[in-house]
Amino acid sequence: MSVRIVLVGTTHPGNIGATARAMKNMGFRDLVLVGPRHFPHEEATARASGAEDVLESARVVDTLDAALADCHFAAGASARSRAIEWPTLSPRECAARLVEASAGGTVALVMGPEKSGLSNEHLDRCQALVTIPTDPAFSSLNIAMAVQVLCYELRLASLAAPEPEEPEIPPATLEDMEYFYAHLETVLTASGFLDPDNPRTLMRRLRRLFVKAGPDQNEVNILRGVLTAFERSMRSES
Amino acid sequence: MSVRIVLVGTTHPGNIGATARAMKNMGFRDLVLVGPRHFPHEEATARASGAEDVLESARVVDTLDAALADCHFAAGASARSRAIEWPTLSPRECAARLVEASAGGTVALVMGPEKSGLSNEHLDRCQALVTIPTDPAFSSLNIAMAVQVLCYELRLASLAAPEPEEPEIPPATLEDMEYFYAHLETVLTASGFLDPDNPRTLMRRLRRLFVKAGPDQNEVNILRGVLTAFERSMRSES
Repeated sequence: MSVRIVLVGTTHPGNIGATARAMKNMGFRDLVLVGPRHFPHEEATARASGAEDVLESARVVDTLDAALADCHFAAGASARSRAIEWPTLSPRECAARLVEASAGGTVALVMGPEKSGLSNEHLDRCQALVTIPTDPAFSSLNIAMAVQVLCYELRLASLAAPEPEEPEIPPATLEDMEYFYAHLETVLTASGFLDPDNPRTLMRRLRRLFVKAGPDQNEVNILRGVLTAFERSMRSES
Repeated sequence: MSVRIVLVGTTHPGNIGATARAMKNMGFRDLVLVGPRHFPHEEATARASGAEDVLESARVVDTLDAALADCHFAAGASARSRAIEWPTLSPRECAARLVEASAGGTVALVMGPEKSGLSNEHLDRCQALVTIPTDPAFSSLNIAMAVQVLCYELRLASLAAPEPEEPEIPPATLEDMEYFYAHLETVLTASGFLDPDNPRTLMRRLRRLFVKAGPDQNEVNILRGVLTAFERSMRSES
């Protein structure tokens, strides 16, 4: 089971070290850091406390898209409910979903910056949202603690689950999907349906629809073909 | 639901603060520290990060017996399997057991020192052992992380459980039981059945038997009466 933990914009290096330890305790080692404020850092190493190997092999990238490019499913952790309703899972449901999705390749669990959490733009890159049920009176969970709870549920789910069957056609990677969404946005704009000056939540709603559809690699290629055909016919009309 | 977290012999004050935060995140506030190396301490306060009130109301005591005196059920956390088989629960099973037992009064979750964990003598004071399923290749879970996972399961179990029915006769407190065990040991020694120079695991085995029986306050009084009667008859014989 290939699970990646992605930390976005982590402020305190100690939390990166504690996350590495929490991951390794539960049998996970693939850590990617998106624009950490300080890394490598002695505090990260100190808190890793036996999981220095996870820190050493951690990749540092600039964008969430780069962190997720070769994944095909990502769950974003969030304490808050969002304006647009994204499917929100409990840690146990999220773990089951990730184990199931991991049949197709690498899946990811994405954590936001300590103070602000993941932005809506980050969550648009995720296919599900996971919320840890804390006491509403004191809900600010430390980020490494959240990773510990989620990795604990992931370990239980992976130990309990039968070896998932590999799908015949692999699912589209998140990179494929981002190319598709960019293409879709271009065509929608060219058609006049999407007004770049007043986009509302159209792209977010369309992303949600395609997440539910869960396209495989063949299907995303067909969708790209459709878009290209539309583009050609629009050009020939003008 | 009244759950006490007991930390025995904690070495690093930062772990005490992180434990307070983890508890409060899941809605728990009753913290007792048995002989902490440093407390209060600025590092504990820093890591509590919003849960300073839990630290301020924490009680510091000298012995585990004092920490558990008014409880009637305690689960001890342990990474290791023990020579004598104590009932070992998963975090989920342990949470269900604690919620159930909490109908009778305060229950406790006991964590040992960072390096060594709980000793066999500590575990003798507990009625169950709980083990968090870590990767055997890297099983040393940080103590506050362990509290986070266990309190998370406790919160889920308490949210899911129907309000437990209060038993007619309250269960014996752990203090009552310790008096009973001390009394039992005295009488067994006087009878010659227990050789103080070669006690083996007799008392441990007897404790285990009475834990399974789960005596209420009436029953432990009856047991004490039986012991007193034995003592009198032994004295009159000699």
